[in-house]
Order: sequence, then C-alpha cells, then structure tokens
Amino acid sequence: MAAGNTFGTLVKLTLFGESHGDSVGGVLDGFPAGYTVNESLLKTMLQQRFPSASFETARREEDAVEFLSGLKNKTTLGSPIAFRIRNTNARPGDYESLKNIFRPGHADFVYHEKYGLEPQSGGGRASGRETAARVVAGALALGFLREKGIDIISYISAIGSEKMIDAGDWKEESAVFNSPVRCPDHEAESRMQQYLKQISNAKDSIGGCVTTLVRGLPAGLGEPVFGKLNAVLAQAIMSIPGAKGVDFGEGFAGLHLKGSEYNDVPVMNNGKVQFESNHSGGVQAGISNGNILLMKTAFRPASSVGTAQHSIDTEGHRVDLKISGRHDACFAPRASIVVTAMTAIVLMDAWLQFKSYDREF
Amino acid sequence: MAAGNTFGTLVKLTLFGESHGDSVGGVLDGFPAGYTVNESLLKTMLQQRFPSASFETARREEDAVEFLSGLKNKTTLGSPIAFRIRNTNARPGDYESLKNIFRPGHADFVYHEKYGLEPQSGGGRASGRETAARVVAGALALGFLREKGIDIISYISAIGSEKMIDAGDWKEESAVFNSPVRCPDHEAESRMQQYLKQISNAKDSIGGCVTTLVRGLPAGLGEPVFGKLNAVLAQAIMSIPGAKGVDFGEGFAGLHLKGSEYNDVPVMNNGKVQFESNHSGGVQAGISNGNILLMKTAFRPASSVGTAQHSIDTEGHRVDLKISGRHDACFAPRASIVVTAMTAIVLMDAWLQFKSYDREF
Amino acid sequence: MAAGNTFGTLVKLTLFGESHGDSVGGVLDGFPAGYTVNESLLKTMLQQRFPSASFETARREEDAVEFLSGLKNKTTLGSPIAFRIRNTNARPGDYESLKNIFRPGHADFVYHEKYGLEPQSGGGRASGRETAARVVAGALALGFLREKGIDIISYISAIGSEKMIDAGDWKEESAVFNSPVRCPDHEAESRMQQYLKQISNAKDSIGGCVTTLVRGLPAGLGEPVFGKLNAVLAQAIMSIPGAKGVDFGEGFAGLHLKGSEYNDVPVMNNGKVQFESNHSGGVQAGISNGNILLMKTAFRPASSVGTAQHSIDTEGHRVDLKISGRHDACFAPRASIVVTAMTAIVLMDAWLQFKSYDREF
Amino acid sequence: MAAGNTFGTLVKLTLFGESHGDSVGGVLDGFPAGYTVNESLLKTMLQQRFPSASFETARREEDAVEFLSGLKNKTTLGSPIAFRIRNTNARPGDYESLKNIFRPGHADFVYHEKYGLEPQSGGGRASGRETAARVVAGALALGFLREKGIDIISYISAIGSEKMIDAGDWKEESAVFNSPVRCPDHEAESRMQQYLKQISNAKDSIGGCVTTLVRGLPAGLGEPVFGKLNAVLAQAIMSIPGAKGVDFGEGFAGLHLKGSEYNDVPVMNNGKVQFESNHSGGVQAGISNGNILLMKTAFRPASSVGTAQHSIDTEGHRVDLKISGRHDACFAPRASIVVTAMTAIVLMDAWLQFKSYDREF
Repeated sequence: MAAGNTFGTLVKLTLFGESHGDSVGGVLDGFPAGYTVNESLLKTMLQQRFPSASFETARREEDAVEFLSGLKNKTTLGSPIAFRIRNTNARPGDYESLKNIFRPGHADFVYHEKYGLEPQSGGGRASGRETAARVVAGALALGFLREKGIDIISYISAIGSEKMIDAGDWKEESAVFNSPVRCPDHEAESRMQQYLKQISNAKDSIGGCVTTLVRGLPAGLGEPVFGKLNAVLAQAIMSIPGAKGVDFGEGFAGLHLKGSEYNDVPVMNNGKVQFESNHSGGVQAGISNGNILLMKTAFRPASSVGTAQHSIDTEGHRVDLKISGRHDACFAPRASIVVTAMTAIVLMDAWLQFKSYDREF
Repeated sequence: MAAGNTFGTLVKLTLFGESHGDSVGGVLDGFPAGYTVNESLLKTMLQQRFPSASFETARREEDAVEFLSGLKNKTTLGSPIAFRIRNTNARPGDYESLKNIFRPGHADFVYHEKYGLEPQSGGGRASGRETAARVVAGALALGFLREKGIDIISYISAIGSEKMIDAGDWKEESAVFNSPVRCPDHEAESRMQQYLKQISNAKDSIGGCVTTLVRGLPAGLGEPVFGKLNAVLAQAIMSIPGAKGVDFGEGFAGLHLKGSEYNDVPVMNNGKVQFESNHSGGVQAGISNGNILLMKTAFRPASSVGTAQHSIDTEGHRVDLKISGRHDACFAPRASIVVTAMTAIVLMDAWLQFKSYDREF
Repeated sequence: MAAGNTFGTLVKLTLFGESHGDSVGGVLDGFPAGYTVNESLLKTMLQQRFPSASFETARREEDAVEFLSGLKNKTTLGSPIAFRIRNTNARPGDYESLKNIFRPGHADFVYHEKYGLEPQSGGGRASGRETAARVVAGALALGFLREKGIDIISYISAIGSEKMIDAGDWKEESAVFNSPVRCPDHEAESRMQQYLKQISNAKDSIGGCVTTLVRGLPAGLGEPVFGKLNAVLAQAIMSIPGAKGVDFGEGFAGLHLKGSEYNDVPVMNNGKVQFESNHSGGVQAGISNGNILLMKTAFRPASSVGTAQHSIDTEGHRVDLKISGRHDACFAPRASIVVTAMTAIVLMDAWLQFKSYDREF
Repeated sequence: MAAGNTFGTLVKLTLFGESHGDSVGGVLDGFPAGYTVNESLLKTMLQQRFPSASFETARREEDAVEFLSGLKNKTTLGSPIAFRIRNTNARPGDYESLKNIFRPGHADFVYHEKYGLEPQSGGGRASGRETAARVVAGALALGFLREKGIDIISYISAIGSEKMIDAGDWKEESAVFNSPVRCPDHEAESRMQQYLKQISNAKDSIGGCVTTLVRGLPAGLGEPVFGKLNAVLAQAIMSIPGAKGVDFGEGFAGLHLKGSEYNDVPVMNNGKVQFESNHSGGVQAGISNGNILLMKTAFRPASSVGTAQHSIDTEGHRVDLKISGRHDACFAPRASIVVTAMTAIVLMDAWLQFKSYDREF
C-alpha cells in the first residue's frame, strides 16, 4: 500500500474521496498566481460530466464546488487550490442487497484483497464519482492553457461498433457539448443514440471510444525519456476509471501503414514548419511537434448491468444477483470531459516545464 | 526542459546515453540486497534485443554490460546498481550526408525545437539504442520476480496486417525466443516472415503489435488512482521509442462486447478465487486481480526507409533524400524484449509497494 | 513557481490553506487500511498547538477537524484521508492599517517578489496557521507508530538564554504537555516563564529550542543517500514556519568532542546490540541504529513585535509601524507539537519503506 | 529498502558507487542544452575535495572524471549527463583485520541491520568517497549559476573549539582555496592548523563547522511549504556523510536575540530593496529575499581514529581494535567543497523552478 493519488511535476494534482463518503475533491498545487478562475468554463465542464441523457445514471446530485484555499476574489494566490464537492445524493441503501458480494467487473474483489475491505456501497474510492474532482482541476488548467492559445476537445468517435468517420480535424465545442452522446457528427450521433436505446432496454451496457484533439501546442513539450508527452498522457488517461487503452495518431490502426506512408513530412509554410500529414498524432519521439495532438481512449462497458449475473461473496459462496441501482448504459460520453481534464493538467505541467528554461532569458 | 529520465517509486531506474556517444546505461536504485544476478537471463535478454534476422539493422555491436556499482561477487548490495554498455560500433560517417536535415519521422525537428540541437547522427538520445539499458535493468527485475513466482513473456501478435490468432494463453519462452519474428505460432510466423521479406526488398518498413502476458501475479498490486497498475505500465511502455498505443485485456477491440459479456465473473476453484474469463486483462480498477495480465503495445514502422523522401533542412529549405544507413524493416520483434523489461521494472516496484504494508506484520 | 506542498514517498502529505482563507487542511495518502483514528491523541495534540498561555496569541479559534474522505466509522480505508479545519476566527480588520506594508521579518516582501501578491492579512500561506493541518496528519502517524512500539516526545530545552540541563533521557508526555512552556524540568520551566513575562511586557519576542526524542525505533530506517533519515527529517523540520536550524545528537555542540570520545561503541546486552553512548543521536550514516533518536530545532523569535519599527511599503516608501495584532511572545512551545507531528510523518514513511522488503518474506 | 539516491525536481541528481567498488559517479538530468562545461572549475573543485594537507587521509587517487553521456564537444545536449570516477587506489587489504567487526561510529552496524551485509572494506556506499560524484555535479551546477550572476563560497569557520570571528561578509575564493584548512582568516587558520597537528599526533579526530555564503541570488527562490529553500537545502546538506546539523542566518545562536533585534528591516537603496541586517540568512518564509544566503553545517569528527577502541563483531563478541588505515584527522575542510556542490545543485533547481513561470511571458 502506497500513496498513489498525487500526479505531476511542477503542477501537482492530489485527489481524494469515496463515492458515498462526505466529499470528493482535490488539491491543485503549483498553479501560478494571478489567474482568475473561469467560472463559466468550470460550470460547463462539470455539466458535461453530469448525467443527463436517458442512457445515463439517474444519480443527480448537483456538483457544487467549494474552494477551500488558494483563491482570493476568485484569483489564484500561487498557493495550493483545495476544493471539494459534497456527496449529497448518496443512497447507500441501494447497495444493501449486494452486501458482501463481489460484483462482477467491479473493484470489490481487488479492494478486498488489497485493503481488506468489505465491498463498499457505490464502489468507494473506485467509483467514477472521483472524476468530478478531476474535472474541477482540469477546468482550471484548461483556462490557463487557453490564455496561451492552446485548446482541447474530446468527443465520442465510437460507441460499440457504431463509429464516426473522422478526419482528425478540429471539432467545435458546441457541436460536441450539445450532443447527448458527445459526437459532433449528426449521422453517427443518430446511429449511436439508436444503439444506446437498445442497450438500455436490454439493461446492458457498452463501451466507447473517445478521441481527443489539442490545437495550438508549440513544438517542444515533453521530457524524454520517461516524461515523454505521450507517456505522461498515457498514465494520466489510463488512471481514469474504465479506461482500457490509449493510443496516439494512427495508434493501433497504424499497423497497416508502411514507413514511407507513415512519416509526417515537414514543409515550410509562410515561414513556419508544418507537416504534410499527422500520422504520428502531433508527438514525435515523445515531444510535441506543433501539429494537432491526436489521442484515442478506449472505455470498457459499465460493470453494473441489470441482467442476471452470478458471482461469489466474501466467504467464497456462489451467489446469483441482479443489480438494480442507478447506472450508465455507456459512460464514455460523460468520460470524454474527464479525458479533456486530464489532458489539460498534463499539458499545463509540460508547458511550465518547457518554459522552465528558455534560451532567450 | 526538465529531468525526465528517472522512473519509479521504491525501485527507481535512471537512464542515460546517446546513440553515438560514449555509452548508454542506467542506474537501478532500490534493488534489495542479497540477490545474485542471473547472468544467463541477462545475456539471453540482451540477445533478444540484438539485431540478427535479415530484416533487421546490420549494426552489430556486442552489448557488453559493465557494472560500475551495486554488486559484489555478482550479488546486490542494496546500493544503486550502475551499468553501462559502450557504443563500440557507431559510424557517424553514415549520417554525414544527412547533416542539417530533419529526417521525416525522426526526432531531429523536435530536438531542434526543444534543445536547439542540430540533427544528431544516429538520433542521439532519441535513438532506440538506449533500450539496451532498459533491458539490463529489466533482466535484473525479471530475475527478482521469478524468485517470487512471477513470469513475463512478450511476443509478436501482428506485423502489418499479418496477425496471429491468439487465445491469450501462456506462451513458452523457447517458442518465442527462437522465432526470428518472436511469434510463437509457426503458421503466423511464416506469413510474417514472408511479408517482412517484401517490405525489406522494397526498402520500406512496417509496424507491429507486441502482446505481453504476466503469470503468477498476486491480486492487490497497483496504487489507485494515479499509481494504478495499468496507468504506470502505460507510462513505462509508451516511453519506449516507437510505441504509439497500449491497451489491456480486450482494450480497443473490446468495443464490440456488452457489459454482460465483458465482466469477468469470479468463482471459487479449490479454495482459490479465479475468473471465468479475462476480458479485463488481469487488472480491475487499476489493481491486479490474480488473473494473467494481458497487455498489447502498438509500434509504428521504422522512420528510416530507403525509399526516396523529401523534407526540409534546418534553414527551412526543401531537400530530397534517400537514407542508406543500417535500419530495421520492423523493430517490433526486437522491441518485444524491451516491453518485457519495462513490465518487469513496473511490477517489481508495484510488488514492493504492495509488500510495504502487510496486515500480517 | 512550482508545486511544493506535497511531501513523502509511501505516505504522502499534501497541505493547503491560508491564514484568513476558508480553511487549512491536508490530504494524507498511503495510510494503510484498517486503523482506527485515535481521537483522543488527535485532540490532545491539537490542544498542544493551541495558544493558551499568557505569552501566546489571543487568537482562539477552536480547531475542529472535519474529515472529508478516507475514513469510515473512524477507521482508515486505505484511500487518501482529506481533512480541513475552518478558519473561524479570522479578523482581517486587524491588518487593515498594515495594508501595502512589508512587515519586517514576515513573508510579505518575498511573497510579493515571488507571486506578485500584496501583503496578505495574517500572512496568508506563510502563516503558522497551516501547522494545524500538520498536527492532524502527525496525530494519525503517531497513532500508527505507537502501535509499532515507537513513541515521540518534543519539549522546550531553551527559551532565549534560559536553558534546561538535559541528559537526553526520555521525558514523560504528562510532564511536557502540562507545562505552559512545554518544559519537563520544573526549575528551568520557572526561569523560562519569568523570562517570557519580561519579553511579553516589553511587547517583544524571543526564540526557543525544541528537543525531540524518539524511542522504540528499530535499526535500519533511512534510505541512503538522499533519503537518509536525518536528511528527510531535516527537510520536514525546516519546512515548519520559523525553524532556522536542526541538528542531531551532539550536533553543533559536538565540535568540542574528539572522535575517540564521539564514537558510540556497540555492546551486547541480553542478546541485543546497544550503545555505550548516544553522541550520534540514534542515526549513523543516515540510518537509525536502534538508539534513542535525538534532534534539536532552533526557532526564531516571532516577527510580529509590538515595539516601534520601520519598514517600506510596496511603493518603496519608508513607513513607521507598530503592530498591534494577536501574537506570541514565543511560539516555540506551541511549535514543539508540530515538530513531533512532522517527525511522526517522516518516521511512518521510513518504517513502511523499511518494511517494503523484508528478507524473511 | 527503497530508492534513495535521486534528488531534485527539474534538475535531478542520481548518485552511485561504493568505496572499494569499480567507480563512484552520477547522472545529472535536466541540465539545459548548450552549456559548455567549465573544466577549470571542475578540476579546481575536485582538487578542493582531494586530500593534500598533512592532517588528511593519505589515500591519493587522482579523481579523473569520465563523462559517459550528455556532452558533445564538452557542451551539454539537454540529455542526462552521466559520469564516473574510477576507484583506482582502493586497498581492501587495509581492512582485512577489521573483517566482521562493527567499527565504532561507522555504518557497519546499521548496514548489517538494513541490508544484511558484512562490514564492507572502506565503508562501501557509506564512505565519503561518494562525495567526489557530488562535486562533479556541483561543479556543473555552479558553472550554470555563475552565468546567472550567482556565486557560492564555503569555508571553515570552526575546527573543534578554534573559531574564526566572522562578520558574514563575502569571502574570496582564493583566500579559501589556498588555505589548507579552508579558512580565509589567517589568524584563525594558524590556530586551527596548530590544533589539528595535536589531534593528528594523538591519532584522534575532531569535527568542524562549514559556513556557506551565496551572493547574487534573486528574491523569490523556494517553493512553500515543503520545497522551501532552507528545507531543501537542509535535506541536501544533511545527506553529506558526517553532517550532523545545519542552520541558517543566526540559526542556533539566534536564541539570544529578541524579535525587535532579529527582524531584517527592508530599505530602499538606489531603487533596490535591501535589508539593514541579515539575521535570517537571506531566507524568509522559505524564500530567498535577495540578501546573502548564509548557512552553517556541523560535521562530526571522523569515526576512524588510531587510538585503542573496543566494539563487537557480527557474532556479538566483544573485540578490541586499533584502526590503522588512511584517514582524516578532520574532514570538514575537504567537505566544505561538497557543501558548495550540494548548494549549487539545489539553487540551480530552485532557479529553474522559479523561472518556470514568469509573469512577463
């Protein structure tokens, strides 16, 4: 057992909170002084994480952020920014019937093995509830990045086998945020929604793929070899509950491309270096190359399904169960803003490290 | 610019070295005292990284490891284990014609932007040459893990579109290590070799997929939320040159599975908890569940191809180039042992963290 | 500007809070699961930090700890333990007359240079107020250590030139905690109190020396070379507001001892290794030797004095000032429990690192 | 057991090596690209650590530094700078008679308890020999700092009870480096030398105090609360073999000063903020204030003395011993350059962190 809830170098994020405890929250340390919190961005991002569509969990607690330190008149002081969101809508009773049962696909068994804990209502620390805190920190980081001309968008490019044809070009925030499935392509969105209805009706769940784009990133971010931009992003993204894979540029799909096709050729364009393609997804040798950063994250289907399942209890006896609580048929749409948040935190840190030594000083 | 070459918590690996400098090497710190180095394992693993097949680079320097500290009579002292491998076969002359040219797909451009460096012969720090040091450290870690009953195997499951049908079951070391493409399936191996011949003849390159299995892992390794086992592995793996994607269990392919199919159901088997399936790849909620750990890594095609390409030089002028040096048509087979090495380092650290507090104490 | 508020390896403490903001608090991560919080110890330690004697600040807010996560039924879950203490008694008005003035000896000037901040009422992040959070975390750590047979006591061995004759032997908690100046020696205590009265009457302040003893520490704690026990303790202790020096064993006073006198000679005593003396203070080569750990901390006089002073304002104009707020004539007695708290946190982490690899496994 | 040999945030130093192993050395990572190594400074600093005076050990191996990576044409590449110094003059035979004996004051016993090691000839990892590597890294860091207008000097202010009257003003390098005891005051130097002769003749040893000054430091370095400049320096300094105490400004001696005397009053001087005094030693609230940084380090007497001693062996039997090897009567003069080196490494890191966010960007 060891401390695993702090992340980052110059900007450090420490997270805390269990699903049905008092609060979830975090401490964002290393944020420069003198920045005003973009409250509208914060609110928008929290709403994006919030369940609203019919295929999402009916747990509806308002995510009201309380800042405990680090701000004065909504402006950063340079000291750590602590915040919490109360868990106002926890209904542990929903879980009473599942007491002592290792729910399939859930953290119950591994938490029991690691911490000696009985299965906790709502999943405890392993619940997706903790991602609300990531979004708060990510909103602060994204606000910072935008002032430097850097922006991030994450959207759904696949739900189950329903995929969006995607050219890897920038997507407008409104097209993504207004879509219940966070898919900016209307035709694909409609297919996805129809499919999710089926899944919902079958009380089942399905996974999804989140595509993330970053524009405005200067060349030079990332610290070889373990601090490579894609390596640190991979850690940050894979720490999100339910993430099972992450790739960059062509990623896994790039196996069909030969080197002669894959290489992104640099050209001069109005005195600026640009690339004829973006197969590498904006990262070469672990360092941003100035191209759009392109990353994809695979999320597994939600573990809680309403169909009949069997499992064992903490005594090792077989049990049959049906989970009736409030759950998502697909949490990938809600997770997309969490991917944006984690990406923002990584990029802000990488940007500051990049700036820690400027030859022009 | 910041220090990025150190990795780990209780066991820390620090790497150093450029392709055509004096040496590549590392410092492995935190290794417990009293372990005898398994020299045969070390030698075998270094040979696995070493190019030998016809489709691989003809750069043939013997990787002789010199230990500088941390050992006495081949036994660990508990102090940092420093080692280096000399670069004996560097031929910077090969790169003379490419001076000042940003080779497509290579680190030249981003290193120029980040460090202000002219393109370095052999790729400098960004060269795959540094992975020899990872293999040394990984061999020590794997030797440690094997004494705890944990073993790792990595093999090639795809080269280009040539795939191996794979049930995710354990593969014997001999079947993998004796295959020039590191594929334990003879039929697939033969298809891959034929395909690589075509690629080689066309002076082109192709990517590959490495599958990694870990057996004997106890349940409980991994430290939520940022120290989740899959998160730390993802960072470690994505730091390997040429890695463009990593996933666990079903990973990206898991999008077609519903939750009712995906969940790994626990059952009691002779007083031990086992699972009816392994869709999650042995990691649940970021913690090992005692199942076989299953991870896949996507490697891009080698950037150096012998076909005609164009690019720009450091002045921004367009140049036409043909790269004639010594390169791999596919480096994924050689990279597979590097994946094993990094996996071993992560697991050894996670194992020690897991043991840092034992309720039985 | 960088994140500086997180400390530790296996147990990580992250602190937050400004003097006159909403709260001070922290997140203690890596605490093993299954421990019940010793509430009485927590309360006692917070009271020790709390001003009560006549020579201490009249700021009297009850330090009520709210746990936000990591506990269920007062028992640790293995997840991060977040807590906060509200700032209920802040009176920013007291500082109105000092607006824009760099108070001598305070952080105002350096915070202005570093963060671009106007002098903050109460000192902001630099206030001693943050140490309440250290005490909370330290109380949890000390509770843990006591279950392992390890105990810590800190007491005042000097205030100004009034010193206690001290043999370095263990001091009972009651003798320390019941003394208003935290001095277990009645004669010295009485001299100190008399002296403090003079200082108080003169509206001046004075520094003090805190001596810390640890008993029950096994030999073997500390990780050479940068994780040496005395090195990590030194960082932890010097991070306490007002600490200006730390030493171990004979420390600075040891200059008069020759090597033949200084060396602690090991002898066998009932099958256990003991030492004939303790000049090294229980730490040899950065590792605990099983002897009583002995450490001393020098605290400067409080910066806020009621006498006439001059300084400059943020515009650089000379100003004359008299500070009338609520302040300590000597904060060293209150700081002694903070030294205990930081010592406990360091030792708990060192103990877990020590246990991360046990040759008996 | 855990990794303890890496230090720093943006600049990371990893050290390795045992006294009688192959080499001592290190890896300095995060050093910005484009700096030319000041070889003359490096040589001078290594010579300062080298024993030459009659009261110092007769072990005379030339400290020839071999750079293994990170440099090209003596210029930094931005990649990790690895280096080693071979142990050419090790004479393990000297230690044969001490086999299995826990030498008093040495690391033998604690290393046995921690690592299960037999007493190692020359002290192994615990030997002062490792400080040669610190000096190499420190010389690179000091070269960097000097280009930013920052300089460091460390000198001997006391040996045993022989003290130098010191006003805390800057000392010239030549006055320090040319003195066999590194004391820039002729009168004190002569007293110290005479005293050391007595100690040497008695085959005994004695401790010393090193005073360190830093000039040219801008206000603003240091990251509250655990990254406070004095806290990080304290860790760095206390990690040096034999260091038993560290203080800043008045430090332990400041107990006799009242707050009204202690506070350093800021004044405007030609448009620049200066201070009327420097009791706080250039650090306020853990942040540099632009004044000269003043730090003192107490070193214990060398453990190896030639007088008759007794101890126990690894079996617990009492033994009488006389140590005849090559040792220092006082190692503080040689250690003074190590203090400079560690100070340089800390300040370079703090400077880069300070620059990681510049409001002018």
